[in-house]
Amino acid sequence: MKKTKEKVNAAIIIIGNEILSGRTQDVNVVAISLWLNELGVKLDEVRVIPDVENTIIQTINKVRKKFKYVFTTGGIGPTHDDITSKSVSKAFNLKYGYHKEAYAILENYYGKEKFSDGRKKMAMMPTNASLILNPSSGAPGFIIENVYCLPGVPSILKSMLGGLNNKIKGGKKILSKTISAQTVESEIANSLEEVQNRFKKVEIGSYPFFRLGKIGVSFVIRSTDKKKIDDCYKEIVSFLKKKKISMIVER
Amino acid sequence: MKKTKEKVNAAIIIIGNEILSGRTQDVNVVAISLWLNELGVKLDEVRVIPDVENTIIQTINKVRKKFKYVFTTGGIGPTHDDITSKSVSKAFNLKYGYHKEAYAILENYYGKEKFSDGRKKMAMMPTNASLILNPSSGAPGFIIENVYCLPGVPSILKSMLGGLNNKIKGGKKILSKTISAQTVESEIANSLEEVQNRFKKVEIGSYPFFRLGKIGVSFVIRSTDKKKIDDCYKEIVSFLKKKKISMIVER
Repeated sequence: MKKTKEKVNAAIIIIGNEILSGRTQDVNVVAISLWLNELGVKLDEVRVIPDVENTIIQTINKVRKKFKYVFTTGGIGPTHDDITSKSVSKAFNLKYGYHKEAYAILENYYGKEKFSDGRKKMAMMPTNASLILNPSSGAPGFIIENVYCLPGVPSILKSMLGGLNNKIKGGKKILSKTISAQTVESEIANSLEEVQNRFKKVEIGSYPFFRLGKIGVSFVIRSTDKKKIDDCYKEIVSFLKKKKISMIVER
Repeated sequence: MKKTKEKVNAAIIIIGNEILSGRTQDVNVVAISLWLNELGVKLDEVRVIPDVENTIIQTINKVRKKFKYVFTTGGIGPTHDDITSKSVSKAFNLKYGYHKEAYAILENYYGKEKFSDGRKKMAMMPTNASLILNPSSGAPGFIIENVYCLPGVPSILKSMLGGLNNKIKGGKKILSKTISAQTVESEIANSLEEVQNRFKKVEIGSYPFFRLGKIGVSFVIRSTDKKKIDDCYKEIVSFLKKKKISMIVER
């Protein structure tokens, strides 16, 4: 019994000055989170930190003790600002050097003659790491204990997630159902709270929106228990009907 | 001398299950970060945490000691999952109740008759908070010490930032310049590192891209010193020319 109740959670550490400076819009959190939902793993924290070795080491060492799975994004490329692999080695007190298998993969990918020093750097990581294969651009990510190091480029990162499916042992799949209604939050806050109080183990989120010239609120019901979601959904629909609030069918 | 050298930094705490679940793409980090750049404040960390009171309290109490400014987004609306104001009160050990000025603003905004209990909740916060006025939708944000609590809806958040300009005492404005080139990172990693080593106080980021069918790398040079940026820029242009790599004019 205990095993199925165990909360399987995860955190993401985004390593990248470009996200903090506002230059680049992160899209990896959504990609990783949606993938984790399917696997029954709940994303419980995200941290965005700069390309600073000490900060990376300290953050990894704090976060990896708190969560079952930790995913880092960014900083595993060939340039001077790519310091994730070295920092992870230091965080775990592991030898940083050429990873034999990664070296062979990259040498084969680029061809012996074009395998320059810059490219060789991408084979440097904790020498005993497990690799995460990269079907898009050769350079692998890697795993040390519960820390999974992925690249920052979204298209490459996405192409690598599938290969991890059988390495992640999730819990029950997290299900969700959404109802949107033409109302404002303050009109329904009390009724919604009553429903939440009757369904303690279901997570009900309320999100106002303004789109296509309409204002409204979306109610998102999340749980691993489909029956509870459906019951909760019915109660929300019921109070919306009572209040004569029209509902919007979700796409 | 010491004052101008003082690093003015900031952190953002995003409070929201909807970001962690992958349902909602955060866009507030970019908005706040770009605004902070203009004010000479460097965003040094972002955390995304769930709508859980203890987590909010602990995160605020850790983060506010490490950074000069802390901005929270989300959780100040009228529904049961909006628990930021209460949590901030607890984090600072302050009385949580109706804030007189906020109450008056909201009563005036909705009109006495339509000022329902749900709406009144938005006037509840630490009773001695300073308000952050909301030109879009009435409900104010608030400030306690160095913690600035903002809403999660991006259009409303953006409309409130301007009103904070004279409350934030930044340092020198952070400037940046970007060069993009039709190359791959591993071709230029060594030359770029040499430039970085000559310009220790300039931050040079290297970001590969794939867009409009072209692959390339953008080099982003950041510093508060325009002369150093220009000098650094020239050296990058110089090695790109030597390597016969064509440059792409940035928009």
